Amino acid sequence: HLGAGRYDPGTGIRVNAASAVNIKPRPIDGYFFEDYRQGQRFAHATPRTISAGDVALYIALTGARQPLHCASTVAQSLGYANCPIDDLLLFNIAFGKTVPDISYNAVANLGYADCRFLRPVYIDDTIRAETEIIGLKENSNGKTGVVYVRSNALNQRDEIVLTWARWVMVTKRTGAPSMSTSTFTPSSAPEFPDFVEKERLAMPAFLKPAAALARDTGGARCWDDYQSGEVIYHPAGMTIDNSDHTLATKLYQNTARVHFDQLHMQDSRFQQRLIYGGHIISVCRALSYDGLENALSILAINSGSHTAPTFAGDTVYASSTVIDKWMLNENFGAMRMQLNGFRNWHPAASAAPDAVPNAEQSVLTLDYTLLMLRH
Amino acid sequence: HLGAGRYDPGTGIRVNAASAVNIKPRPIDGYFFEDYRQGQRFAHATPRTISAGDVALYIALTGARQPLHCASTVAQSLGYANCPIDDLLLFNIAFGKTVPDISYNAVANLGYADCRFLRPVYIDDTIRAETEIIGLKENSNGKTGVVYVRSNALNQRDEIVLTWARWVMVTKRTGAPSMSTSTFTPSSAPEFPDFVEKERLAMPAFLKPAAALARDTGGARCWDDYQSGEVIYHPAGMTIDNSDHTLATKLYQNTARVHFDQLHMQDSRFQQRLIYGGHIISVCRALSYDGLENALSILAINSGSHTAPTFAGDTVYASSTVIDKWMLNENFGAMRMQLNGFRNWHPAASAAPDAVPNAEQSVLTLDYTLLMLRH
Amino acid sequence: HLGAGRYDPGTGIRVNAASAVNIKPRPIDGYFFEDYRQGQRFAHATPRTISAGDVALYIALTGARQPLHCASTVAQSLGYANCPIDDLLLFNIAFGKTVPDISYNAVANLGYADCRFLRPVYIDDTIRAETEIIGLKENSNGKTGVVYVRSNALNQRDEIVLTWARWVMVTKRTGAPSMSTSTFTPSSAPEFPDFVEKERLAMPAFLKPAAALARDTGGARCWDDYQSGEVIYHPAGMTIDNSDHTLATKLYQNTARVHFDQLHMQDSRFQQRLIYGGHIISVCRALSYDGLENALSILAINSGSHTAPTFAGDTVYASSTVIDKWMLNENFGAMRMQLNGFRNWHPAASAAPDAVPNAEQSVLTLDYTLLMLRH
Repeated sequence: HLGAGRYDPGTGIRVNAASAVNIKPRPIDGYFFEDYRQGQRFAHATPRTISAGDVALYIALTGARQPLHCASTVAQSLGYANCPIDDLLLFNIAFGKTVPDISYNAVANLGYADCRFLRPVYIDDTIRAETEIIGLKENSNGKTGVVYVRSNALNQRDEIVLTWARWVMVTKRTGAPSMSTSTFTPSSAPEFPDFVEKERLAMPAFLKPAAALARDTGGARCWDDYQSGEVIYHPAGMTIDNSDHTLATKLYQNTARVHFDQLHMQDSRFQQRLIYGGHIISVCRALSYDGLENALSILAINSGSHTAPTFAGDTVYASSTVIDKWMLNENFGAMRMQLNGFRNWHPAASAAPDAVPNAEQSVLTLDYTLLMLRH
Repeated sequence: HLGAGRYDPGTGIRVNAASAVNIKPRPIDGYFFEDYRQGQRFAHATPRTISAGDVALYIALTGARQPLHCASTVAQSLGYANCPIDDLLLFNIAFGKTVPDISYNAVANLGYADCRFLRPVYIDDTIRAETEIIGLKENSNGKTGVVYVRSNALNQRDEIVLTWARWVMVTKRTGAPSMSTSTFTPSSAPEFPDFVEKERLAMPAFLKPAAALARDTGGARCWDDYQSGEVIYHPAGMTIDNSDHTLATKLYQNTARVHFDQLHMQDSRFQQRLIYGGHIISVCRALSYDGLENALSILAINSGSHTAPTFAGDTVYASSTVIDKWMLNENFGAMRMQLNGFRNWHPAASAAPDAVPNAEQSVLTLDYTLLMLRH
Repeated sequence: HLGAGRYDPGTGIRVNAASAVNIKPRPIDGYFFEDYRQGQRFAHATPRTISAGDVALYIALTGARQPLHCASTVAQSLGYANCPIDDLLLFNIAFGKTVPDISYNAVANLGYADCRFLRPVYIDDTIRAETEIIGLKENSNGKTGVVYVRSNALNQRDEIVLTWARWVMVTKRTGAPSMSTSTFTPSSAPEFPDFVEKERLAMPAFLKPAAALARDTGGARCWDDYQSGEVIYHPAGMTIDNSDHTLATKLYQNTARVHFDQLHMQDSRFQQRLIYGGHIISVCRALSYDGLENALSILAINSGSHTAPTFAGDTVYASSTVIDKWMLNENFGAMRMQLNGFRNWHPAASAAPDAVPNAEQSVLTLDYTLLMLRH
């Protein structure tokens, strides 16, 4: 059912032709649920050249410290030409490109799956994004539906650098059930793998161990030292203010109204702007540095969901649980983790066995796979 | 009465000699109305090299998405060597240079006229600014006067890249009418053209149409598709917080006290910091992206005024009205627009015929001319 | 007592071998007073490549305007290859590297001494930091102690670019007096010079006078025009908001909890986040531009202390007092200054002879030495 297009050699992911044409010009108020069709493809607007400014802002906005992304000496000692940009900076920029076509009228970003980081991206690379509708499911209330998409980010050489699936709840333009229209093809939700298997992880072939890495990262523990089931309570917390999260979200050129327009949000049940979920992922990943210093980069996001909204003034904390470990070669390993994010609740409090975060305090569950130095 | 100086070939604008000397060292508390003389020239301080960091911050601070300014692939397909910096980033940086000499003791920035963008500016170009006093008019209250200036921004090759006129109300050092002093030469306000005529617009000669532009901008409508009189209600709104606007204004090295010094402003009638008007122009221009996606760059600002102040916490909205259209060649056209900015009032509300913003809600009227792809 | 290592030719400062190993892996909750030993050396983590983005953010966060650091034309006319990064941007980044090992559990940053800027740092240089414990003094309360350190910042060629001493009050892990343990070696505070003498200042050898500097800086007064004892009341003030100071501190990858974690700080006596002291130094230095325009760069910080905390919402002002002047050659001179920072109190108010800031309003005393053009 996927239609025409070429396949990216090496990844098996379909790349839309540069001439891929959206079905009709986007309405100024965005697409609604009825506007989407199974197999429809979008070549998203506003490609973006990544710059040294984006990298510095990402550090300032999240507190990220991974030396691979901010010290060229470290990147080069690992075999990179220069610092690759932070995986989540790439993810957030690419994600932002899809918003005007996919989630402008979204009520909720429900989940992610099968997200793979396929090639390093460097400063001066230009990123564009494209999306295919891979599933549509109307909700029984007749007012909303779930849109399932596969999105790719591509560089200026049309190489896919990142691919991910997500599903999002989108408002209908009208309350009338669209099933009754002749053009709507109902479809069930697509199936996604529980996690990205070891064979599908894209470790850069040039990667070599860096002798001084432990000194440069400040962390003594490597892949060999972690055990499945182990929980790491990251000590730091970060309070998020309105300018931080709106600057981040504007940097990603994400236009979802819920993050920017206080007057509009005053009438919502939240009565305030929502923090973009991708910013929470970035902050939790940055907080997880203490305890996971030798995690070089992200290979995959297996699944994830934003379990509660966050707001300006919230203090975010994180914990990590080791789910699984796979050896990649004699020097590197992959570690599948569950990263949990909390608002106004410190996970170390869970040392008290009956202390658990309530539904509003648990804000992120992200199952992802890290690339680590083995020893 | 203009004194010595050389004329810039091609633009006919006078460039002050690099040795242009200000009449006397600037007082630490800035110049007041009595200090200015007709024909006086200022070579402003603190030249500035534009960097990739400025460009990224401009995106983060305003949400700007014009691909010409953030995707090198798009810029190059149009014939540029690389991304030229956003016209308004240039304007704000150049404007900031003039503040210490011209508007440090300004009560109000009254208006702009005859502003022309003459040459693209790229990352690593160094910008300086100079100004000539072209008119002085004392106000009848004897406490303030209006100072009319022509300012130019120049690059490191002493080429004028931007020129504009503005007038500003400046406090007098003393309440005594300066007319009674022997050194003051009264003069009336200079006359400005209502708008920059087609013949005076500086479209880059190298410009060529980019085949994939509509895909890259996400907008289906080009110059041929707009009609004079047409109104575009831009859907998005942006709430401005204190850190956003002060970061922007500091980035521009604009030192006007009203934007930064809360303790000082507490005693003003506003009781709080004012948002720099140039930031409002930038935000409104960024909001206008949805509906004007194929507007490549700004050729001229014909006239403009800040009709009411904005404050942190305000949500800004914008609408655009097509005033006139001129064909430039077979591929490009100019479109003269009125950009209106509002605070805490959405222009789409004006669909109700009797709904109009009140005097405090209408914050910006900017008559400017855009460069657009024709089809 | 200093142990092995090589000495940097030309500066006489000891460089730790790249293999310098910390005594034991850092605990996830950081080091406490009992963990430090006289002579212990730390090779701090997370080296950092300085970028154009850092430079732009520094301007946006502080309002810095020194042309040497933001106009390549000016830097080159003075003999630099390009703009060196602002001395305090370097200081703050290097300082941030030391925080996880030195001041993560600090109660207060007590003072600085003998800080010297030894070599210019440019964009794309990679900075790392190292520290040696040079003194330990337990406080009589048995709960805290003072840790004295000498820290160096080095570039990718292992050249020391900056060296400084500081002392910091650090919490003990337990309340038990550590004197009773066999491993603790009590030591008194090391002695520091009152100021860095002229012979130890590192003016770049290539420096040449720039003809147009006064035009480019906007300041008419040079080294020859200032007199010892002279006080300069810098006119501008800057209100600091939460996002500003947390963005700055995250940009420096400084992880001290007191700046970021509102939930944690709610239970402190301040009931809110503290602004990082290095940000206050940067803001005061930026405010001092008006009145000291021809101060090119910082040669040394002789001593300094943060005399009271600052919080979001505070407006910061500054004054400078000329302490001493030394001629360096026919074109350049050094000027030793006392920079005073105030919160919510303008130093010009001290024109009234009995007006003095109270203990909470005087926030910074910094004795430092500037490099200036002589005439």
